[in-house]
Order: sequence, then structure tokens, then C-alpha cells
Amino acid sequence: MSTQKLHIGIIGAGRIGRVHAETLAFRLPESQIVSITDVNREAAQALAARCNIPKVAASSDEILADKQIEVVLICSSTNTHADLIAQAAKAGKHIFCEKPIAFSLEQIDHALAAVKTAGVQLQIGFNRRFDANFARVRQAVASGEIGTPSLMHIISRDPAPPPLSYVKVSGGIFMDMTIHDFDMARFLIGDEVEEIYTAAGVRVDPEIGKAGDLDTALIVLRFRNGVIGTIDNSRKAVYGYDQRVEILGSKGKIATENFYPNQIVISTGDTVYKDLPLNFFMDRYTESFVAELQSFIAAVLEKRTTAVTGIDGRIPVAMALAARKSYDEHRPVRLSEVGG
Amino acid sequence: MSTQKLHIGIIGAGRIGRVHAETLAFRLPESQIVSITDVNREAAQALAARCNIPKVAASSDEILADKQIEVVLICSSTNTHADLIAQAAKAGKHIFCEKPIAFSLEQIDHALAAVKTAGVQLQIGFNRRFDANFARVRQAVASGEIGTPSLMHIISRDPAPPPLSYVKVSGGIFMDMTIHDFDMARFLIGDEVEEIYTAAGVRVDPEIGKAGDLDTALIVLRFRNGVIGTIDNSRKAVYGYDQRVEILGSKGKIATENFYPNQIVISTGDTVYKDLPLNFFMDRYTESFVAELQSFIAAVLEKRTTAVTGIDGRIPVAMALAARKSYDEHRPVRLSEVGG
Amino acid sequence: MSTQKLHIGIIGAGRIGRVHAETLAFRLPESQIVSITDVNREAAQALAARCNIPKVAASSDEILADKQIEVVLICSSTNTHADLIAQAAKAGKHIFCEKPIAFSLEQIDHALAAVKTAGVQLQIGFNRRFDANFARVRQAVASGEIGTPSLMHIISRDPAPPPLSYVKVSGGIFMDMTIHDFDMARFLIGDEVEEIYTAAGVRVDPEIGKAGDLDTALIVLRFRNGVIGTIDNSRKAVYGYDQRVEILGSKGKIATENFYPNQIVISTGDTVYKDLPLNFFMDRYTESFVAELQSFIAAVLEKRTTAVTGIDGRIPVAMALAARKSYDEHRPVRLSEVGG
Amino acid sequence: MSTQKLHIGIIGAGRIGRVHAETLAFRLPESQIVSITDVNREAAQALAARCNIPKVAASSDEILADKQIEVVLICSSTNTHADLIAQAAKAGKHIFCEKPIAFSLEQIDHALAAVKTAGVQLQIGFNRRFDANFARVRQAVASGEIGTPSLMHIISRDPAPPPLSYVKVSGGIFMDMTIHDFDMARFLIGDEVEEIYTAAGVRVDPEIGKAGDLDTALIVLRFRNGVIGTIDNSRKAVYGYDQRVEILGSKGKIATENFYPNQIVISTGDTVYKDLPLNFFMDRYTESFVAELQSFIAAVLEKRTTAVTGIDGRIPVAMALAARKSYDEHRPVRLSEVGG
Repeated sequence: MSTQKLHIGIIGAGRIGRVHAETLAFRLPESQIVSITDVNREAAQALAARCNIPKVAASSDEILADKQIEVVLICSSTNTHADLIAQAAKAGKHIFCEKPIAFSLEQIDHALAAVKTAGVQLQIGFNRRFDANFARVRQAVASGEIGTPSLMHIISRDPAPPPLSYVKVSGGIFMDMTIHDFDMARFLIGDEVEEIYTAAGVRVDPEIGKAGDLDTALIVLRFRNGVIGTIDNSRKAVYGYDQRVEILGSKGKIATENFYPNQIVISTGDTVYKDLPLNFFMDRYTESFVAELQSFIAAVLEKRTTAVTGIDGRIPVAMALAARKSYDEHRPVRLSEVGG
Repeated sequence: MSTQKLHIGIIGAGRIGRVHAETLAFRLPESQIVSITDVNREAAQALAARCNIPKVAASSDEILADKQIEVVLICSSTNTHADLIAQAAKAGKHIFCEKPIAFSLEQIDHALAAVKTAGVQLQIGFNRRFDANFARVRQAVASGEIGTPSLMHIISRDPAPPPLSYVKVSGGIFMDMTIHDFDMARFLIGDEVEEIYTAAGVRVDPEIGKAGDLDTALIVLRFRNGVIGTIDNSRKAVYGYDQRVEILGSKGKIATENFYPNQIVISTGDTVYKDLPLNFFMDRYTESFVAELQSFIAAVLEKRTTAVTGIDGRIPVAMALAARKSYDEHRPVRLSEVGG
Repeated sequence: MSTQKLHIGIIGAGRIGRVHAETLAFRLPESQIVSITDVNREAAQALAARCNIPKVAASSDEILADKQIEVVLICSSTNTHADLIAQAAKAGKHIFCEKPIAFSLEQIDHALAAVKTAGVQLQIGFNRRFDANFARVRQAVASGEIGTPSLMHIISRDPAPPPLSYVKVSGGIFMDMTIHDFDMARFLIGDEVEEIYTAAGVRVDPEIGKAGDLDTALIVLRFRNGVIGTIDNSRKAVYGYDQRVEILGSKGKIATENFYPNQIVISTGDTVYKDLPLNFFMDRYTESFVAELQSFIAAVLEKRTTAVTGIDGRIPVAMALAARKSYDEHRPVRLSEVGG
Repeated sequence: MSTQKLHIGIIGAGRIGRVHAETLAFRLPESQIVSITDVNREAAQALAARCNIPKVAASSDEILADKQIEVVLICSSTNTHADLIAQAAKAGKHIFCEKPIAFSLEQIDHALAAVKTAGVQLQIGFNRRFDANFARVRQAVASGEIGTPSLMHIISRDPAPPPLSYVKVSGGIFMDMTIHDFDMARFLIGDEVEEIYTAAGVRVDPEIGKAGDLDTALIVLRFRNGVIGTIDNSRKAVYGYDQRVEILGSKGKIATENFYPNQIVISTGDTVYKDLPLNFFMDRYTESFVAELQSFIAAVLEKRTTAVTGIDGRIPVAMALAARKSYDEHRPVRLSEVGG
């Protein structure tokens, strides 16, 4: 209920741009969207109408040149992220940018250097940290509720593979999907991974393999503090979106279950059943999208470090590179080998 | 995303008025609140500021006289509901009114007659029908998924009793609390109750007993179609809000569990535990408040009968009267005995 | 691993007689079955062969006259229980008798008087008290883990109705089925019921109604200490045997779930399901049959009062009589009205 | 209820010998133990008294020379298994032998050759295959209920580490603990593992590390059919014995939960909790010990191949060798490298 309102410009009116615009417009009264742009002008116009955004800018340049705007949200395609970060930083804007920043560490380092020089705030869109389950798991680890961790497992499976056209430009499974889990692993354990071993294959769709990508992966993480972790990824779980973690510590275990649309159980003459879990990220992570922007806006207003900084955007990319190298070379790979 | 917007006036800016105002302002773009009033003018002003409502009216009369307003939300105290419904109907407004309509069937009949005469739409605020769990249970019954029902149980317990000052004017536990469960029973089974037997007592706080009320009740419902149901009420469940139902049918059983803030389970050397369920109705039924207004607005816009009509507001009051009479006379009471 | 062995005679080689014989023979080395009898001599012979019982007696008289026998198990039909108890007591045998003792309180009082005169031990076969779930619930109540109880619910549903021939001689649903739940209610709360109200009907099979019995019942219990309880009975739950209780106390709630043959959950594209619960009492209560005899044998060997005494056998019969009277007269009935 | 009884001799009256002796004596009437021996004669005598075994033999030689004996159970220490198998085979006895057969594949091959030459039956004591959960998971895989498997996880954690004295002679964690999980992996997937990668460490007790062993391990299995599996082992889970598996297939997922001593849940003002799971293998796998012997005896009587053959005893030992080699050499190791 603060009367101070942050003035925001949005670059990108696609799926995730729309999520953020609606959140800012309808859920976060401490923000005000003043301008939006998209390479698809119609998409920008429709979203502007939907969310009462007064202006549709012709380009990101126009957004960055707008003196009224204090904060930009970068929701455009991945290949534009690094440059836009650098330009927005130079323009003195605080920045919220979707993940990944880029597929190469050089580009990321370039962008982060610009942010550092400009002294602006940057938050990367690892929204899952703000999910009620994962935030609670982190709390249990950080508070000592389960003692010193020793084993960690992340299950992260999509209900269906993305279109092949996306697979071909996404940077591959480790960059488009596991990237979230790499961030989650670091977030939950509160320590860095030093070595990665990947076992993976094509089990869902041979076309994904022909496109040079994988659809099923098991990644072993060795943390500096000795914790051993795994990430289980599949591009297709027929029962829906499967998002769970489990950590074993010296004082106990914490495990999460998926969220379900309701809490009903039906017992019949055949089985005892319930409805399928929430199907995909728009349903599953709805509230985390609100919480991440709330956290970002509060950080900007209170001039605090954001909850997910530039380096938090860099390391998962290094992990993705190491995971792929491990798969290609069939051996454990240290992050230092890929510049991590 | 319809461009047609309903113009709405709100009478009452207390707790539930605020819930509805925020829902209309931030979640339902097809509505536009044009005016609000409250006997506490400051409350109305604060809510108007919060929700960008352009006008704070001096009285309900001013709201009802406002030609721009097509719909009124009656969120004032119960003793004003019946008269306001009648007046709003005469003014040609469509009406959403909180429950109960009144404590007496005469008053209710007077209000409903006015609604009928005016031919306006009326929806009563039994929001729980729109909850994901209960809507799914109703679906299972209506679709035959569990066959023909024979036994039904409703558990409905508050985390803590209301203030004594409220208890003294609320109409008693059957009118302020069980009223929701009476509606739920009818809704789930899709049939009418013809007889009620009440076993009840004071187990939570003797002061509630001194005020002439009860805090713990078990109510047996006999439906016309032979289903036997129970409602279990307590004004205090230390673990939080407990809202469950279970129905046994010829083809199976459906049961609901509470909603929890997260889906984590921690196993330690002592116990296997999880966090407490969502504590009270503002957390538990958040989405149902949105869904009920969405349904109401759609009904008005599409000129359809509302999902919870005036008679749906009347019958639970008759059931509350019968439940109390059964307790007082220590015998099963037919609804026909109290005018139901 | 005591070397002292109790010498046991068994009267009745039907279903429950076989359960007890196998338990004594294979699970309880501190007992030795020396003789068995049954009106169906072949059944007795088969069971003797199965369990290495050295002697098949011609009659219960022969068992009672056998000087070597210290303990008799009465597993014959209900109409013989009271007389056999009295005769066994006169013969100086300790007695384990299946429930119910009789359908009339007079017969029960006659039998219990004989037991008292003889000073022998008597345990009634309310095995469910020894079930892991219900014993744990009792512990939670007795230890104060959930504070002072106020509401209690027992769900007790069979997977399928018994044969009509059995229904006609069983004494009716309250005597053949609810009798266990009446005992459970007293056991869990640790107090006596003073009033009962029954709502019941025929929902499963009209033939049961024609035989003068009911197949679906909801029984409200009012305990002397103010606790309100319910028993939910159905002769047919298509998903299997449903045996649960729930108690609300001032410090918390305890609830039980059914036991399942395995702990697997399968998630498919349609539902998330598990296999049906254990189907009926032979599977569900297997271990409780062992524990009740273990407890009985220990009580006899250590000359302690048994865990389920003669009066524990009498009161549930009075409750069954009151439940039926309540149904017949459509009003709450005090146990004192039926001699309870 | 067959009257044919197998005559059995038991070598070894330690913990597992006692489990099997009691199972045969009290649960499996189709068997008759005629003789038992142990290097600790007192242990053999006590168990003979407990289980009504008529003879305590002076040595395993005496057992093997006993013409009445058709079957021997080898429950002595691991270092004696291979020789005893060979000797028993030469003596024409059918053999049930505890796992592992030996720590070296040469010894195992020697024993299995003797079995083959003699044409006797051999079953290895991988009892978990007979557990209700794991048997059901296998059924789901074999029947196609979850489609073609792609990812498998086994969690297998002990409540507390064994004594250091045991760790020093046990062959190490992969041989004393993971051996069960190696068998489980092959059993569930129905295919062979061709490569293993191990990440492991000492997290529970430094003394275990000083003894040259590990206490925490994550083992990645690559099956010939492309399934990727993991085994998660810890020698200490403070909440008790943790024994779960999960398999993702093309048509669904199957996951198991632990077994609990009861099915109660208590909700208080602090948490919602239940009691700890069954603590260790004697409680958790009770019924599987019965089922494995039942299966073995039936196989012998019906002259069928046993459910867990000699090769099933050999392969997990090869897997243990590969797992250790992978840890030592910090790289994935093919089973063919260790003679598997």
C-alpha cells in the first residue's frame, strides 16, 4: 500500500511477458507499467489493452530512452538478453531479465560488466526460488531443521516436449530446461557445484535426437561441501508437470510433493484415485511469478541486492555447459573446465 | 476479455466488502466499481483509494439512486440485508448479497418477493460452492462417478471462536457458521433435507454458553431421497481451518482433504511432519471468492439464472432454525415445522 | 519364550475358530491346544490336522470335563455363548468368548454371574482394540496428546453384505456389525455412552429390509463426559473394508486411514491411483487376532484382569438395543431405558 | 496343506538363521526342520528349543551327511557361503543361501559350477523381491502398466550404521548394503546393467572412512536397454529405514512409500505429524522372508527353477565390484571390466 510507484517498461509481449504484465497490472499496486514493446506489434497492443498500459513503444530503444521509466523487464528471446541488459544498464535502468542470460559465458560476462559499471539492480527470472515448496525446503536447510545435508534429488519433468522448432534454437535440454534445476540445486544447498556427471539419452522422441538434443537426463552434481545431488529430467511425463525435490540431512529428510488442482480422493471398486497434478508451469508456478516480481520491486525500492543476481544467472549456464561436455565426453567434468 | 463492463456499487467496506472490491478491481476486468459506501466512512475511503474506486457515496440510498450502477454488492451487516435487497430490487439493480439474508423467514420472503416482482438477478454469497474441492465433489455426485449417494459427512471447524461480541449478535452457531454447511449439504447432494437432529454442547469456551450459544455441534440431516448426512462443527480446531466432506455412494466414495500452504514433508528422529493447513477462510477460499463473482457477473451479463438463487439463501436459514429447535427440544425436527 | 504352556480347548472350528487355532498353534508358543470340538465333526478334524491338535472331542461337554484343559475358547454360534460361558466357569476354566455374548442382557447377566462366582478370567473377542491404529488412537486420547476430546467419528463399512441367511439370525446390523463400533467408541473415549440416536435405512439391498434389518446407519452417541460421537455403518463399500476413526480434542485431532496391501502410487495420463485397501477383516485385522490372544494368555498366566472383561461384553449389547429402539421410535434413547 | 514335507537342515543360527528357522517352524507347515548347527553351539541349542528342532548337529558336515535332509539353508557368515554351496551340491542337497555368495566372482563361479554339475536347486536370499511394494512395482513394469521405463530411482537408507567391526569385514557398503539394491534394479527393470558410475563419500561417521569404507553413495546405472537408474544409499537416516523406488515409463510413473506401523495422523497447533516408518529390515521385510522361503519350497517340491538363481547371486557382486572401481578411478566403469 505504498504510494510510491515504480515506472516500468516491458520488452517482449510473448507468453512470459504477458504473465509479468498481468502480475504488475493486477496484483502489484506498487508498480505502474508505462510502456511495452514487441517485435510483434499486435501482441504488444493486445497486451497493452488488456493491462491498461498507456503506451506501445516502437522498439526497445524507445523504452530505454524513456526518462520516466526506472525499470525494464526483458522478456524477449534469449539471443537478445545480454545486449539488452548491457544497453539498459547504460541507460541507468534497473533490470529484470528472463533466463538464461545467454548461451555463452563471454556474452554474460559482458552484460554483467555493464551492470556493475552502471551500478543498477539486476534480477534474473529464476521464479521457482519463490515457490512455496522450494522456499520452504530452502528454509529447512538454512535453518538447520534437517541438519547438514548430504544427498539431494531434484525431479523436474515436463508434461510434453516443446515443439521441435524450439528445441533447435533453445540451446538444448540443459540450457532450456535443466537451467532451472541447476539454479534450484545451488539455491537449496547454498553452495556451489564443482563437478558434474551426465547420463542421458533420447527416450521420448527420436526427432529430438536427430535435432542433436536429448530428452531424458540424469545429472550428478558434486558440491564443494561434499553434498551429492541428482537432477532427473524428462521432456515428457504423461501425468503432467513433475516438480519435486528431496534432501537428506543429518537430522532428517525433507521431501516435496506436486501441487494438485484439488484435494479429493475417489475410491471405487477398481482403484483409489485422484485427479492429475497441475499440468504445467503457468498453473504450477503462478504465485511464484507474483512473488519474484514483488521481491524485485521491493529490492529496487529499498535499494537492496536482488534475490537472484547476475552471478546467479551466470553459474547455471556454466553448469549447462559442463553437463553437456560430460555427456559428450562420457566422464565427470569440473565446472572450472568450462570457465565456471 | 469482453469489452462490456458491468458498473457496480458496493454497500459495505468491512472484511468481506474488501475481499469483493479487490477481486472486482484486480481480478475481474469485466467489472467496474463506480461507487462504494459504508457506515464507517473512513473504511469506505480507504478501500476506494486501494481499489481505484472513483466515488465514496454517503449512503446506500445514494448507491441505489445512481443510474450508472447496474449491480449492487450487499456486504453490510446481516440485519440490513433483507431491506437492502428489497430496495435494490425496486431500484432495478441486480444484486449480490452476503449470507445469511436474514434470521427470519418472513424477512427473507419479503425480500425475495421484491426480487421476483422486479425481475432482477440475485446471487447469495455461498462462495464455497465455487471452491475447487467442493465443486469437484458435486461433479462426482452429479455425474454418477460415485453412484447413488447414501451417506454424507461435512467437517467444518474454525481455527478459533469469533469475539464474544460477535457471537451475541450473529444469530448463533447454526446461523453464523453452519449456514455454509447447510448450503453445502444441499449443493452436494442435489436434494432437500426434510428432517434435522442436533446434538451439541459447549466444549470450547464457557462464555459462549453463557451468551446462549453453542460451540460444538453434530447435526444429522435426513434428505428426502434417503441420504443421511452429518455436519460436524467446532468453533475451535487448534490446527487451523478444517473443511472437508466425504460422500459414500453405491459406486464409490469421494473424500476431500484440506489445502496446505506447501506440499513438504519432513522426517526427523521424532516424527514425520508437515506444516499446518491454510488457517482460515481468507486463505482457504481465496479463489472461490473470485469464482463466485465471476459466475455472478457472467450470469448478469448473459441474463442467466445465478448459481445461488434467493431460495438457496432461504433454505439454509430454515435449516438453522430447525437445528436449533432440535437442540432445544431434544428430538428430530422436520423442516416443515419451522416453515421450511 | 516362557516354558510354561497354557493348555487350551477350543469349542467351534468355523471361520473364527480356525483363526484362533492357527494363531495359537503357529504364533503363540506359550499355548498348547489339547482338544477341539465342533458340531461339524469334519471341520474339527480338518483343523486338528492342520494345527497338530492331538484330540477331537465329541462335544463341548467333553472339552469342559477335560482336567488338562485350563482355558477354553468359545468360537461357536452366538446362541450358545452365554450357556457355554456359564458351564465353563462352573468347570473352573478361564474363558475367551467371541462377541456378542448374547442378544439379551438377561442371558449375559446370567453368564457373567457364573464367571464372578467361579472367579475365572473372561475375555470377550473385541479384537479391534488390539489393532495398531486403534490402539494408537486410544494412546493419544489417554495420554492427553490431543487434549480433552469433544467429537469422535467412527467409519465402519463392510465390503459386501453377509448372506441373507446370516442377516436373519444375526440379531441385526447393530448386533452383528455395529457391536464392534460400540465397543470401539467406549474404548477410545474411555467413558460411557448415555444416549443414542439412530438414523438408518436400507440403501444396499431391499432384501435386507424385507428381512427386517437395515444396511446403512448413522448413530449419534452422547457420552457422559459430553463427547459427541458418530458411527457410520454401511454393509457395502465397493472399494473394500473401510475402518477409520477420528477424534477432535482441545489440543489436536487424530485421524486414521485404512491399511493398504502395498504403498505404491501410479500416475498415468488419466489419474493418480493406488490399489484398493485390504478387503476384509481377515486381512485387515490379522495381527489384532494375534495380539488379543497374546494379551489374554498373558492375563491368565499372570493372573491379571483381562483387557476386555465381561462388562465390556455386556455394554455394547445394551447399546445395540438402544440403537434399534431409537430407530424404531424415531427419538434419542437413553441406555438406562433398555437396562444398560 | 500338502502332506508332503521337505526335510530341512539349517547351517547358522545367527540373526538371519533365526528368522528363517521361525518362519519354517511356525509359518510354513510344508517344511520340517530336522537339524541345525552353528559354530556357536549354544545359539543353535537355543534356537532348536525355540523352534522344536529335534537335533543340534556338531557341524555343517554332519548336516550335509544326513540322508534325511533334502534341503539346506546356508545362513552362516559370507566367507563360508561358496564352499558350503559346493559341498551341499555335491551332497545332493537343494540349497537356499544368504547373500552375497562371496566377494569374488571366482569363488562364486566355482560354487555355481558345482550346483550345475549336481543338478540341485539353488535360491539366493534376495528377499526384497518378495516384498509387497517391490513385487507390485515389478508387476507394473512387466505388465506394461507404466509403459516402457526410462528412469529408475532406488532409495535405500539404513536407520544407523552397523558396528565398525562389521564394516571392516563386510566387503564394504556396495557389498553389504547396495548388493540388495543392485539385485532390485535388475529385478525391477528386467534387464542388465552395463555401466556404473559412483559418486560417494563419508558423511555419517569418519571412522567408517578410516576403515576404508564409504557411508553415503549415489550410483548411476546404465542398462543395456537404455534405462538410466540411480541408487541412493546412506548408512544413516535418523527417521528410520528408508526403502523406496520410483520408475518413470512412457505411460506413467510408479512410486512407493515406506511402510508405517500405523496409519494415524495427528494435527496439533504446531504441525501435522505421524509416527516414524518401520525402523529396520526385521520389521519392514517380515513378510518377504516368509514369501521367499515359501517360493523356494514350492520350487523344490514342484521341481521348478527358483525365483532367484545362482546367476542372480553372481551379477550383483559384479556390480558391487564395478561400483567400487568407479569410485576409486573416478569414471564410469563397464561391468565387463570386472568380469561381470
